[in-house]
Amino acid sequence: APKNAGEQKKGAQNSKGKSGKFVLKTPKGTRDYNPAEMAVRRKVFNTIYSVFHMHGAVEIETPVFELKEVLTGKYGEDSKLIYDLEDQGGEILSLRYDLTVPFARYVAMNKITNIKRYHVARVYRRDNPAMTRGRYREFYQCDFDIAGQYEAMLPDAECVQLVHQVLSKLDLGEYTIKINHRKILDGVFGACGVPAEKFRPICSAVDKLDKSPWEEVRKEMVDEKGLDPSVADTIGEYVKLSGREELIEKLENDERLKGSAAAQAGFADLKLLFEYSKALGCDTYLVFDMGLARGLDYYTGVIYEAVLKAGQEGGEEGTVGSVAGGGRYDQLVGMFDPKKKTVPCVGVSFGIERLFAIQERKDKAQTDKIRATQTEVFVASACKGMLMERLKLLGTLHTAGIKAESSYKNNPKLLNQLQYAEDNGIPMVVLIGESEVQEGVVKVRNTSSREEVTVKRDELTTVIKQRLTVNL
Amino acid sequence: APKNAGEQKKGAQNSKGKSGKFVLKTPKGTRDYNPAEMAVRRKVFNTIYSVFHMHGAVEIETPVFELKEVLTGKYGEDSKLIYDLEDQGGEILSLRYDLTVPFARYVAMNKITNIKRYHVARVYRRDNPAMTRGRYREFYQCDFDIAGQYEAMLPDAECVQLVHQVLSKLDLGEYTIKINHRKILDGVFGACGVPAEKFRPICSAVDKLDKSPWEEVRKEMVDEKGLDPSVADTIGEYVKLSGREELIEKLENDERLKGSAAAQAGFADLKLLFEYSKALGCDTYLVFDMGLARGLDYYTGVIYEAVLKAGQEGGEEGTVGSVAGGGRYDQLVGMFDPKKKTVPCVGVSFGIERLFAIQERKDKAQTDKIRATQTEVFVASACKGMLMERLKLLGTLHTAGIKAESSYKNNPKLLNQLQYAEDNGIPMVVLIGESEVQEGVVKVRNTSSREEVTVKRDELTTVIKQRLTVNL
Repeated sequence: APKNAGEQKKGAQNSKGKSGKFVLKTPKGTRDYNPAEMAVRRKVFNTIYSVFHMHGAVEIETPVFELKEVLTGKYGEDSKLIYDLEDQGGEILSLRYDLTVPFARYVAMNKITNIKRYHVARVYRRDNPAMTRGRYREFYQCDFDIAGQYEAMLPDAECVQLVHQVLSKLDLGEYTIKINHRKILDGVFGACGVPAEKFRPICSAVDKLDKSPWEEVRKEMVDEKGLDPSVADTIGEYVKLSGREELIEKLENDERLKGSAAAQAGFADLKLLFEYSKALGCDTYLVFDMGLARGLDYYTGVIYEAVLKAGQEGGEEGTVGSVAGGGRYDQLVGMFDPKKKTVPCVGVSFGIERLFAIQERKDKAQTDKIRATQTEVFVASACKGMLMERLKLLGTLHTAGIKAESSYKNNPKLLNQLQYAEDNGIPMVVLIGESEVQEGVVKVRNTSSREEVTVKRDELTTVIKQRLTVNL
Repeated sequence: APKNAGEQKKGAQNSKGKSGKFVLKTPKGTRDYNPAEMAVRRKVFNTIYSVFHMHGAVEIETPVFELKEVLTGKYGEDSKLIYDLEDQGGEILSLRYDLTVPFARYVAMNKITNIKRYHVARVYRRDNPAMTRGRYREFYQCDFDIAGQYEAMLPDAECVQLVHQVLSKLDLGEYTIKINHRKILDGVFGACGVPAEKFRPICSAVDKLDKSPWEEVRKEMVDEKGLDPSVADTIGEYVKLSGREELIEKLENDERLKGSAAAQAGFADLKLLFEYSKALGCDTYLVFDMGLARGLDYYTGVIYEAVLKAGQEGGEEGTVGSVAGGGRYDQLVGMFDPKKKTVPCVGVSFGIERLFAIQERKDKAQTDKIRATQTEVFVASACKGMLMERLKLLGTLHTAGIKAESSYKNNPKLLNQLQYAEDNGIPMVVLIGESEVQEGVVKVRNTSSREEVTVKRDELTTVIKQRLTVNL
């Protein structure tokens, strides 16, 4: 039976619809990017790439899906959000959930002992999308990781420096880099009386502090995860703390944490991190935040998260946006090695969709439009019958490496052609008409000044290139 | 019960294995790309992007999966190769099979009347992989398409010109661009007595001519697709033909084809294509090949395919590699429009994996190694205890936009550091020791000449930048 539009939309979710009977859309939580949006992306990507190259990082690429077993047991409570492929005979596959686990698989599989690599690609999470806030089911991650057995905290400090460099180069406003340490969290949990098997679930609850108030987090600890209410309350005292070196020193001498080898190891690491960051010129951005936990199971050492300060994201009062995060994960590679031989790793991932959104708002506030094309010359007919001449000019300009377009019409109107060049920010127009053909010349017109000069055809590419250089 | 290694490998295909009990690999038909391979890719991509920009194309991006219904009924016999996602509640999704159908969906959904766009991304086909020959289940396509109602064959000629420009810029050896026309094929099929409903299946059989001998193709036509043997034989006479303008003229007057409106329309198009290509300077690469059919159902007009000439691909005698293909598809956008309103399109797709493979072999034959990093300066300790000084220098160099690395060791050996710079092609080393710290200087060493000069610390970035400019 025929359905109304509303039912069709619903029906499209679960049934194999017939051609023409479905709602034309992208899958839930995904979107297309139009040319203007892509131009913004390229700009953000290129900035990030330039910082990655600054650090001598190499690039790798892995498949968009992995054997399901590669992803199993790596993400804790978030595993339920993994996209599985249908069993069509053959291997059981899942779409990658992040770039870190595939990286660890790559390191283990190729028996790599040290590498500093970046990887920019999309990952997939069956989360509840909040697209207006930049949260999608398909989104880019820009990852930079250092694998290898090195001097304590040196690669970690490099990752923090890199976060600072990317965010200051993107120039999207003030930011803070929160840091904490899984060993400090575990030390606190242990000292407060949390049984070891509950460290990760309780850590996962603490992770929700940036979205939920303490009361809700406490409820999860007590009601869902069976923690003694007084233990939860003691944890609550610690995770509220934040500061800098002086807080580390205070906690080193804390009665409960004094005897915790884990916490003390964490404090020593963070002190080194502050020291190295000072030498690298980025220590002023650091804040030691005991409430930072990071959701994923695989972190083992320092963790960090960069947040843009409140009120900057286009006026959403009080919104603090996390735009990068990461940490040390020393055991992940070992999970893939038959002999459990591991390679220590530390890395950072930039949450690019949010950076795009902020960059877009910033660009819209400016008068200069970002161009979606790079065309330098528009080849225009000054009169009818010039099609073949225009094609020849296009061939000549392209051969000289000049970016040039022309109309697809046989006899386009001159005014429309000039308007097109103006609308699309094409700096120069090459005009050809009958008299120009006879004299072996063309006119070169400056789009913004409208000034025109006559140029010999065999000097055209030289003249254009000179003018392009001057404009740069 | 424990299994031996061979059984484990088999078991991993169909069962949810336990951690550590599976074979560490990428999914069938996929692979990782290591840093050296990625450097080759970037080089090939950048060349292709530069040509796309030459033509004023804009970039778009679409999700990696689509609603399954978007892909249904677009690919003919190849539909069985589509990867489906598991139904985890919600929409039924499939991985994209090419970039053309998502592009048509994008055009229809956004009611776009004209756009010239490129899109570089991976697509997914559950084909039998032949990885040594560059055929994967996950592979890149570089697509350039022009949508819009324009003067006949002008966008088509631009696509052919673009294929020529990309291949000549990549400089991978001699190539030919085969062209044909779906209307000519349909005209031939009709004139030979093929019933209309068998046009596409018979076209699909002709498409196999580049891999199989005529005898096999004929067998498929007769045995599988129920064609009269004499009809197949007549088709066989036509699909063997190839030539240039003179073949078009001959066939225009062919007794069987004279009365075929479809064939005559196709001939008129090809004549225009030759004429425009001449003006654009790329006609000498064209060959009219009646045996070219292209597999996909959606083509409606001119079709083309670029092949590298035999014997070039690293000595594989007689191998002719198809590296790009495309054509006109005027009805695809209409399949997504509720009122069947269409937008005519023409485009081309570069088969990038094969181009990579050829570029890699070419690079290996050369002495100059492609670097996987771009590092300009290595900061080295000349003696112990220089770690904090090295970090300060890294901070200074990075702030000045200079790409610089240093060792992660507290006290690395000088020789090892110099060797690292040499092995990785890093052109300069900045050396710091105790006496340099006291005097406020550093040594700048040229890696290849080994010449060293002493430079004041506050002049360091200026000196480095000068030296980098000179080397360019």
